Amino acid sequence: MHVGILGGGQLGRMLALSARELGLEVTVVDPNPDAPAQVAARHVVADYASTEAMLALRAVDVVTYEFENVPEEATRLLAAHVPVHPSPIALAVAQDRLSEKTTFQALGIDTPRYVQVGSEQDVMRAFAELGPLVLKTRRFGYDGKGQVVVRTAEAARTAFAAIGAAPAIAEELLSFEREVSALVCRARDGQIAAYPVTHNVHRQGVLAISEAPAGIPSELGERALAAASRLAEHFGYVGVLALELFCVDGRLLANEFAPRVHNSGHWTLEGAKTSQFENHLRAVCGLPLGSAELLLPSVMVNLLGRVPEAARLLALPDVHLHDYGKAPRAGRKVGHVTARAPTPEEARRIADEIERIVAG
Amino acid sequence: MHVGILGGGQLGRMLALSARELGLEVTVVDPNPDAPAQVAARHVVADYASTEAMLALRAVDVVTYEFENVPEEATRLLAAHVPVHPSPIALAVAQDRLSEKTTFQALGIDTPRYVQVGSEQDVMRAFAELGPLVLKTRRFGYDGKGQVVVRTAEAARTAFAAIGAAPAIAEELLSFEREVSALVCRARDGQIAAYPVTHNVHRQGVLAISEAPAGIPSELGERALAAASRLAEHFGYVGVLALELFCVDGRLLANEFAPRVHNSGHWTLEGAKTSQFENHLRAVCGLPLGSAELLLPSVMVNLLGRVPEAARLLALPDVHLHDYGKAPRAGRKVGHVTARAPTPEEARRIADEIERIVAG
Repeated sequence: MHVGILGGGQLGRMLALSARELGLEVTVVDPNPDAPAQVAARHVVADYASTEAMLALRAVDVVTYEFENVPEEATRLLAAHVPVHPSPIALAVAQDRLSEKTTFQALGIDTPRYVQVGSEQDVMRAFAELGPLVLKTRRFGYDGKGQVVVRTAEAARTAFAAIGAAPAIAEELLSFEREVSALVCRARDGQIAAYPVTHNVHRQGVLAISEAPAGIPSELGERALAAASRLAEHFGYVGVLALELFCVDGRLLANEFAPRVHNSGHWTLEGAKTSQFENHLRAVCGLPLGSAELLLPSVMVNLLGRVPEAARLLALPDVHLHDYGKAPRAGRKVGHVTARAPTPEEARRIADEIERIVAG
Repeated sequence: MHVGILGGGQLGRMLALSARELGLEVTVVDPNPDAPAQVAARHVVADYASTEAMLALRAVDVVTYEFENVPEEATRLLAAHVPVHPSPIALAVAQDRLSEKTTFQALGIDTPRYVQVGSEQDVMRAFAELGPLVLKTRRFGYDGKGQVVVRTAEAARTAFAAIGAAPAIAEELLSFEREVSALVCRARDGQIAAYPVTHNVHRQGVLAISEAPAGIPSELGERALAAASRLAEHFGYVGVLALELFCVDGRLLANEFAPRVHNSGHWTLEGAKTSQFENHLRAVCGLPLGSAELLLPSVMVNLLGRVPEAARLLALPDVHLHDYGKAPRAGRKVGHVTARAPTPEEARRIADEIERIVAG
């Protein structure tokens, strides 16, 4: 079986490596000649929506994608010729923060309060209604980009220009306790594998650490996974879906979802019985899913900018390094490290040591 | 760091996939244009001892090999320019059943009784001394090839011709209870990671199933690992070493060792905290080793000839498929399947189901 992947970054790379274990052929499309996934895939260096990309991917058995800013039209054109999973509809909704929020609400999944914004006046009205808020462009935001926090009426006046006067939504600013993510994988036949909910720590808007289990009451965890499953069922979704939620005063509020394997699921490579990458591939290829159960409490630490000396990281107990083979660049995700331990506290302690090494 | 691998079969493929997770560059040399490892490595299609191979591998940081019939001279030539691990000395000993046995004996590692054979007369004398025996060519035997069992004086007369009149050794024929293998990985600094001893079931001379733990008394297991460690220390060995032993009436008798990652260690991909492939790479690259502890009782089933329908295999609980991407051919190792379970009995029961699927 031959899998085509739109995008050849680190997610495409880990998908391709996992695909090779399963004996799958892999073609990635990525305009970057240095795309990390090329180490384990045929690499078509082309724009996602180019004729070359379309022709290459029409020849495979199933197409998937590794990031949500792939042109939705490209996936629609392909879907006429070859199965595309997850479905272009899920992708279209994930690409628009407003559709995302209205979909959550239609499915009874609570969200922070929000207001649609199309002008400076809208932001000011939103501030009057919501108080302190986050203004986010509806499209093409990730890792904290395309966002601005508004805490004063003064700031509200300039916020719309600050995000490029693009269609946006304003969301109430939460003093949330935790951000968690609920990863589920849905098979073609509707089978769902739900990973333990993960606790995520962000720094400067970028994911720094994920911990599984999340350390929240199990009832909350179950609700988070039920919400992610409901979303997957709504779309007739096939593959891994990551739902990010805020925990606020015992409530769960859905922030956004990613229609793909997700950074907060990297710990599953060692920490779960089946990794998110393997399960995503099993799903899109129409195979039965593997267990998403936790093997051992796990922590994942992102490596930003550069990979520190491997010998120092690997001297720590039950630590595994994933180096994406990228050139160093400030702030760039160049790898991640996972630690497993008998208890969450011990896993977190090792993560602290990893962070000390990363800090140099 | 750039790793060169002599041999691009399934072992080279799994090494290459593991190397990519660690961010290593990989070059494999293999004369087979369809070598399975090429999916995750630069592939130099050339004979092992060719100038092309030598030039390609002199440019990498460290050279290793995936099978023991690589020309020992090629590794010696390379070793003058680039570190070669495991050392060519260990390779040379492993390539000769007589040197292997005398090395075992010199290190106080018990072996079956054996006699050196260079003629038809030698076989007849050996039969008089040992009784029923196995005649094995000293060099280039694997998976039961180059061997013949001699149970009568009549058979002794023709056995030498049957193995091609090559230099050989005759070993007493054992009615052994179990064959086990002891895998250890030794780092450049002498650190040793010892995997739980594995029980191996052969059929028609080819490994069919490996189980970890082996289900032998722990004292025996410790002795097997001590023997493997002694061997590794003797050679100043770097990388994974697999020692195969027979368990006979509570005694352990060393059969042979492989200076490389080994089929009986494939279960470590899911069943151990660090796989044999990752640890071999960590070792040859001078990195600290990872834990070789068992995660869960595991069984590995080899897939010979063809890979059965993946959907049937993957419907079993906690089962993982490794398909080497090889064309089907009778008897060929084309993949393997691992099963983990809470108990060895349950893992074995799932292995039985896998075997039923394999049998079609």
